[in-house]
Amino acid sequence: MTKSKAEGALKELGQKLVRDIEKGKNPSIEFSLRGLSNVVFDEKTKKLALGSKEATRTFFNVGHAKKFLQTLEVAKVSKNLLDVEKHASLRDVFYMAKRTIPDSSINIVDEQTETDKSIEDLELITDFSREQLNINANKMGSVAGKVVVEDKGDTIDWSKLGSGGWSIPSNVEEIEFKKAKAKYVIYMEKAAVWERLHEDKVWDKQDCIIMSSQGQTTRGIRRLLQRMNKELKLPIYVLTDFDSWGQYIYSVLKFGSISLAHMADQLAVPSIKFLGITADDIERYGLQKHFIKLTERDISRMKQISEYEWFNKNKAWQNEFKKMKQFGAKAEIQALSSKGISFISEVYLPEKIKNGRWID
Amino acid sequence: MTKSKAEGALKELGQKLVRDIEKGKNPSIEFSLRGLSNVVFDEKTKKLALGSKEATRTFFNVGHAKKFLQTLEVAKVSKNLLDVEKHASLRDVFYMAKRTIPDSSINIVDEQTETDKSIEDLELITDFSREQLNINANKMGSVAGKVVVEDKGDTIDWSKLGSGGWSIPSNVEEIEFKKAKAKYVIYMEKAAVWERLHEDKVWDKQDCIIMSSQGQTTRGIRRLLQRMNKELKLPIYVLTDFDSWGQYIYSVLKFGSISLAHMADQLAVPSIKFLGITADDIERYGLQKHFIKLTERDISRMKQISEYEWFNKNKAWQNEFKKMKQFGAKAEIQALSSKGISFISEVYLPEKIKNGRWID
Repeated sequence: MTKSKAEGALKELGQKLVRDIEKGKNPSIEFSLRGLSNVVFDEKTKKLALGSKEATRTFFNVGHAKKFLQTLEVAKVSKNLLDVEKHASLRDVFYMAKRTIPDSSINIVDEQTETDKSIEDLELITDFSREQLNINANKMGSVAGKVVVEDKGDTIDWSKLGSGGWSIPSNVEEIEFKKAKAKYVIYMEKAAVWERLHEDKVWDKQDCIIMSSQGQTTRGIRRLLQRMNKELKLPIYVLTDFDSWGQYIYSVLKFGSISLAHMADQLAVPSIKFLGITADDIERYGLQKHFIKLTERDISRMKQISEYEWFNKNKAWQNEFKKMKQFGAKAEIQALSSKGISFISEVYLPEKIKNGRWID
Repeated sequence: MTKSKAEGALKELGQKLVRDIEKGKNPSIEFSLRGLSNVVFDEKTKKLALGSKEATRTFFNVGHAKKFLQTLEVAKVSKNLLDVEKHASLRDVFYMAKRTIPDSSINIVDEQTETDKSIEDLELITDFSREQLNINANKMGSVAGKVVVEDKGDTIDWSKLGSGGWSIPSNVEEIEFKKAKAKYVIYMEKAAVWERLHEDKVWDKQDCIIMSSQGQTTRGIRRLLQRMNKELKLPIYVLTDFDSWGQYIYSVLKFGSISLAHMADQLAVPSIKFLGITADDIERYGLQKHFIKLTERDISRMKQISEYEWFNKNKAWQNEFKKMKQFGAKAEIQALSSKGISFISEVYLPEKIKNGRWID
């Protein structure tokens, strides 16, 4: 279904260009301008979005010609992938698009950043995500919980996968939720914390789903979280360190990211709640002795984040930033281990969820 | 079984120290010296190993006292973990060992590197791996194939897990192989290549197991590869780029790593074969047009690797290094995508395996 729609959008792009040529017009592609200058925070949807600035790329323009060609080449690669029902990584697409223009010494692309940008352009032009265009992001992360999904003809029970859990694919578009017995989802940035919660059977005892990546949240994970929120109607909690990097992970999941503002509708979950370490937790659980001094880089990142439109009117968050500045320190989620290996599973999480001690 | 043995070794350490004290002796711990100066390449086992240099750590010695205490504190943490049958990450162990010595302002540990080193010492002292001491490394990677394992009471079929596969746990000691229909294992450094092979059902068509991490190979993966090699009697192939980093991944898997030389017996697989891109593949498949120029860093790393004892007498490898120098370039495995999205699955891998075109 999605496949034929995405193919349709690519065909429409080709046909539009053919019409331009037949009319003797300069072939052109129009789409929203990407980049910070055209990113807005939509107060109504509480998501980042692109503003109204448009970009036009025309073929007979020395400054545009190469990008024009790159965009079309990537569209061709995507069309071929959809035709054979296979998926490629960003790196694959780069190599598939990289060829020398006949009778010249010019390569269509020289660097992966060029195809990456073309793929983002194509998302804007077609209104399909790169996953729907059969181009995959990185694969990362694990999940466990009382959920049964169907994927590629297999029925997979996330509660019966031993200590490993299900390995989350880069592309989660085709996964179907068959059964789910869960009250909420906890997403954490660290695989080690996931293993802690998994060994303690938190998903079983608390009827929840536990999910992690390692570091940056991949698109596959963001999309899967959004689908669980929409389709399974589950609240999502984010569990991170008390630092700017953890807070930004939450920010991206909730509001969208600046570089993928055009994808916020398919990736962001505005109702997400922050369940990571807060200034209040530091005091409540006596984590001061595990403080890690803020570096210059931490301080400038904190300042930057605190000024984001979606944070600077939020009292709870402004209080976090103020306290972090006062402390002159950050703290890690694993500092909770100093209070006992399963303190996080048996005290921290149940207490915070029961008493609604999250930040919205 | 392992649990009670590991506990026994920790108890033995404690009892030995008590005996020292009762005899009025300076409590001491002896173990092999770690570090490059005591790493040897064992020509017979074809593995790295520690040499005969010993280190003694005594309590009444200003230079040793803190490390002595750290080692014992970590031994205590491990003993407690074994008692409650739970596992901790390296970061958890750091926080669990981090406390201030009463009536002083001295912390037992200030940095994670201190507990990490103590854990490695403990591996040498007890002859148990940190996984057996219930301390886990990082979790990473996915696996698929016609294999059924039992883990934590769950029966998991690696051939029925959709596009994601099984997420490999950090600790694979307790996994039991129940069934396996496979002729070999392909381990690759890149998750994106794994997704390619998985989508092409290479494990099904070729009767093999496909496994990947992302970047550095974790201890869990090394141990799982070794167990598949020993218990399932399967040959292991490593699939990487034509560069020094890929070659070193192979080197670590095959011979062991310098920093974990003392663990080579439990981690290395001397029969592993290199199935990644070779100089011969570059010419055979015309990958020259996707060459990436060697950087200064690449060149110095190549020189370093080519001089390792286990590479410098190996003609095939010396030829690879010579060619790489001549090319002045490296090449990525994904460059094969330029010849078709499934070229790697349908041509490259079957051809190389059928014709024995690997490097031993």
